[in-house]
Amino acid sequence: MADSGMLVIISGPSGSGKGTVVKKLCPENNFALSISMTTRNPRPNEIDGVDYFFCTPDEFKKVRDNNGLLEHAQFCGNFYGTPRFYVEEQIKKNKFVVLEIDVNGALQVKEKFDNCVLIFLIPPSMEELANRLINRDTESIETIEDRLNRAHEEVKLIDKYDYIIINDDVDKAVEKINTVVTAENLKPFRNTSIIKKLNGSEN
Amino acid sequence: MADSGMLVIISGPSGSGKGTVVKKLCPENNFALSISMTTRNPRPNEIDGVDYFFCTPDEFKKVRDNNGLLEHAQFCGNFYGTPRFYVEEQIKKNKFVVLEIDVNGALQVKEKFDNCVLIFLIPPSMEELANRLINRDTESIETIEDRLNRAHEEVKLIDKYDYIIINDDVDKAVEKINTVVTAENLKPFRNTSIIKKLNGSEN
Repeated sequence: MADSGMLVIISGPSGSGKGTVVKKLCPENNFALSISMTTRNPRPNEIDGVDYFFCTPDEFKKVRDNNGLLEHAQFCGNFYGTPRFYVEEQIKKNKFVVLEIDVNGALQVKEKFDNCVLIFLIPPSMEELANRLINRDTESIETIEDRLNRAHEEVKLIDKYDYIIINDDVDKAVEKINTVVTAENLKPFRNTSIIKKLNGSEN
Repeated sequence: MADSGMLVIISGPSGSGKGTVVKKLCPENNFALSISMTTRNPRPNEIDGVDYFFCTPDEFKKVRDNNGLLEHAQFCGNFYGTPRFYVEEQIKKNKFVVLEIDVNGALQVKEKFDNCVLIFLIPPSMEELANRLINRDTESIETIEDRLNRAHEEVKLIDKYDYIIINDDVDKAVEKINTVVTAENLKPFRNTSIIKKLNGSEN
């Protein structure tokens, strides 16, 4: 029915379970993961154009300077960014492109990509988030504290998001994302061809 | 999860099937029909406070002049309006209040009631709409032409609506309205109490 696919951004604090939710989402219902561009070296099992678009710093800068990135950031001396061309190509194919990204990145994308949908995945409570991080048993107390502080900062920006979903059950969270996408597809600006037809401008 | 219910406005041209859809919607999932206020005399089977709130012209004007109506109009010498108090009361009870109303009324309500959700029910095509009206076999050609002209005028305002739903199957249309309401309930501004809790301002 709708004119095309859409860009769906999913953020949420570490421990909100967004990785698991995104993994369950992607093979279903026409979802496709966004692929990042990076200057970091590929690991042995990584495939160019599947895991990342690998590039040189010069190539990265060229794309970035030509407004070809929806957002970008630097970690450990490497550049990472979301290439606009891949997102646009998938949307034209009616895909729901999923971009799992932090709040800063999400807000950068929103400025450049008007019709994207921002979903914030939250834990049932901050206590539950702390419990999840502690129960992972893989991180130091300092890292956990750091993640919790960051979660508190991120939650302050939650009203910049279009939708919030409590992740107390992965399947229900996935179902809610599907609900959001279905409802978004019913917005008039995503259905201009049907409206034109009704208005008789395509007859 | 959400803080309260919401006002759901359903419009659509005569023949779009909105009456049938609304009837199927209301008993389910916490929906409640809005009740109009009118100065027309009750018919024998009509109950005050169920079918309408019946009132005198003076009572009507008093409510209207005190900003107590979300919209109002006059038909055949009688006043009709949507009383704000009833809608607000139902919303506080977490109900999804359904208001079936024409485009002019809907846009009046939107101005006065920020958080309402506007859904436009459309037929699969204008040809199908004409067929439905002709097949009803209850109206004169003049009335049908008049309704079709009005439909064309209404469709021009479709982009003022939040969602459009094609009614080619009543059950699917009802399902889509449920989807819209579920998604709307995930918007941050409808979940301020959860956000406050996450932000620690309610602990």
